[in-house]
Amino acid sequence: MTILEETVAAILPADPAAVAEARAHQDRLTKPQGALGVLEDVAVRLAGAAGVSPPPLPAPAALAIFAADHGVHARGVTPWPQEVTLQMVGNFLAGGAVANAFAAQVGASVTVVDVGVAADLDPAPGLIVSKVAHGTADLSRGPAMTREQAVAALEAGIAVARDLVAQGARCLVSGDMGIANTTASAALICAFTGRDAAVVTGRGTGVDDETLTRKVEVVREALRVNGLERGPDEAPPVPALETLAAVGGLEHAAIAGFVLGGAALRVPVILDGVIAGAAALAAVALAPDAVDHCVAGHRSAEPGHAIALEHLGLRPLIELGMRLGEGTGGLLAHPLVCAAARVMHEVATFDSAGVTDKTA
Amino acid sequence: MTILEETVAAILPADPAAVAEARAHQDRLTKPQGALGVLEDVAVRLAGAAGVSPPPLPAPAALAIFAADHGVHARGVTPWPQEVTLQMVGNFLAGGAVANAFAAQVGASVTVVDVGVAADLDPAPGLIVSKVAHGTADLSRGPAMTREQAVAALEAGIAVARDLVAQGARCLVSGDMGIANTTASAALICAFTGRDAAVVTGRGTGVDDETLTRKVEVVREALRVNGLERGPDEAPPVPALETLAAVGGLEHAAIAGFVLGGAALRVPVILDGVIAGAAALAAVALAPDAVDHCVAGHRSAEPGHAIALEHLGLRPLIELGMRLGEGTGGLLAHPLVCAAARVMHEVATFDSAGVTDKTA
Repeated sequence: MTILEETVAAILPADPAAVAEARAHQDRLTKPQGALGVLEDVAVRLAGAAGVSPPPLPAPAALAIFAADHGVHARGVTPWPQEVTLQMVGNFLAGGAVANAFAAQVGASVTVVDVGVAADLDPAPGLIVSKVAHGTADLSRGPAMTREQAVAALEAGIAVARDLVAQGARCLVSGDMGIANTTASAALICAFTGRDAAVVTGRGTGVDDETLTRKVEVVREALRVNGLERGPDEAPPVPALETLAAVGGLEHAAIAGFVLGGAALRVPVILDGVIAGAAALAAVALAPDAVDHCVAGHRSAEPGHAIALEHLGLRPLIELGMRLGEGTGGLLAHPLVCAAARVMHEVATFDSAGVTDKTA
Repeated sequence: MTILEETVAAILPADPAAVAEARAHQDRLTKPQGALGVLEDVAVRLAGAAGVSPPPLPAPAALAIFAADHGVHARGVTPWPQEVTLQMVGNFLAGGAVANAFAAQVGASVTVVDVGVAADLDPAPGLIVSKVAHGTADLSRGPAMTREQAVAALEAGIAVARDLVAQGARCLVSGDMGIANTTASAALICAFTGRDAAVVTGRGTGVDDETLTRKVEVVREALRVNGLERGPDEAPPVPALETLAAVGGLEHAAIAGFVLGGAALRVPVILDGVIAGAAALAAVALAPDAVDHCVAGHRSAEPGHAIALEHLGLRPLIELGMRLGEGTGGLLAHPLVCAAARVMHEVATFDSAGVTDKTA
């Protein structure tokens, strides 16, 4: 068995007994039933994923920022030069990006993983070099990756998840950096959901109308050239791994692997924005039970993200119109996920606290 | 001058120069312009309130839970017995409530303030006894408080804000405990916004249809009996202090004072749910510039809360269908507010990081 096959085989669905016990425990706590809204569902979800109630506290968190470049950049889908991917890797390693500030706020470690930056990087503390290629090929002309490259990137993501958990992480947060990666995300989301490119594709970092029109056309070409056109009610014409290889980025494949790696170890994965959403669609197509181990950190401003989350059946915790990537939205959700779990450990029951329960 | 008058006189509006500098600084940071969405507005708001950019980090936070009972409880507006207010104060002091778990998660201190619990409390660490009365009178039969009681509760809240800031708090979070206090909140929101009782009044901790119908009728009676009926386009018929005394709770008055006290010291106040929203309407009616020092922590499931926030012009940071009170929604927003401020201190500019700005 390959590492990918072994990982997929190890992923278990939510444990129904732990889910039931978590739900029952919530209702004994000193609060009106349901008063924590979505956070009660988060706590129950963590219990189901871990197979135990109360669920382990999902801390400390580890952020992995998977960085890669994209051949489709040549099609003019973004005003940012490709070298910004490399420059931002330097910014992460120097601690100067928003992801660093947010990680410091929530007490998360930051690891940068080069799975496909177009330049060679010097070794640095906090950097893992697992480069599969110097960027992808142009997905609008043919497959972005070979099948082998996609597997290598998936396994790189699995390895990072394993390493971070071995180092003590009890929650994984996905991050990304890759100029032009909202274009690949849109293509993946179209391919996995069957939704139209015009409704899925967004402005990314903020492109103008002309660029958006071109971006939609590039996504359509990518789907056509790679034989991925379908309607929402039609089965995907191509298997999940080949779909990922055809229109994904190396960071999408690595994040999909990161999700699978966390799920196999029963460590929850907080998904960041549209890139993580697209990657999670690939992960869940490869291993459907992996979704039970994911928490949607936030909903970004990118329209395809909401479509991906709906398809995954995930409810985002934070909706603040963010559209930065890097893992920033996932990081901000971490205290909320911890708070949901803490309630299960630390809050008194009506009986233990001597508080009168109106429902008793 | 009374303490209340002195506090109101000390409150300054947002500083336009700090706002402009904060906005300009955001646009120099290594991220696409606007990519942090609402959090960029939060950072700018903090700068305006503090009068300096970057704004001080709003940490550590201090939660004050103002507890009081309500004469309107006798009208059957809730299935919870009145003694639950006292029991929950005990639960807070023992560290067993959800507010304690959330405060531990975000590193906030917890102070419980008795401004009007119907029973006498024993002294305890973490408890401030500033009891103004053993609960309010029934607001549906006449004024809930005298004008003097409302001022005393306002000044109790001001004193708590001053004390917590003197002890090192750099962010205040409002909390409440008071069985039946969503009824008083609905009456305050109707009185300050002119909206109808039927759209403002909600299910609180989860009342049934029959109780909700009664609750709406009680709110209507309270407005009629106290001469507070008005349309949304009509001026309030009664001054703010008298309105607060007529249909507010002692904890509403204290939270209004807490908001004024924080604003006067230029320390931001994170508002919790519908009780804080109602109290903030009173605070802002007394001192309009106080709103510039408030951050809406979350939007609760209670319909009147959204109406209050809209009237205040505040955008909530968290919307998870919570309806617990205690300060729980405000506490969860604290890491987000800190993250917004941290960005202003810690994130590199395009120039300093050597990252190419597409807008340059």
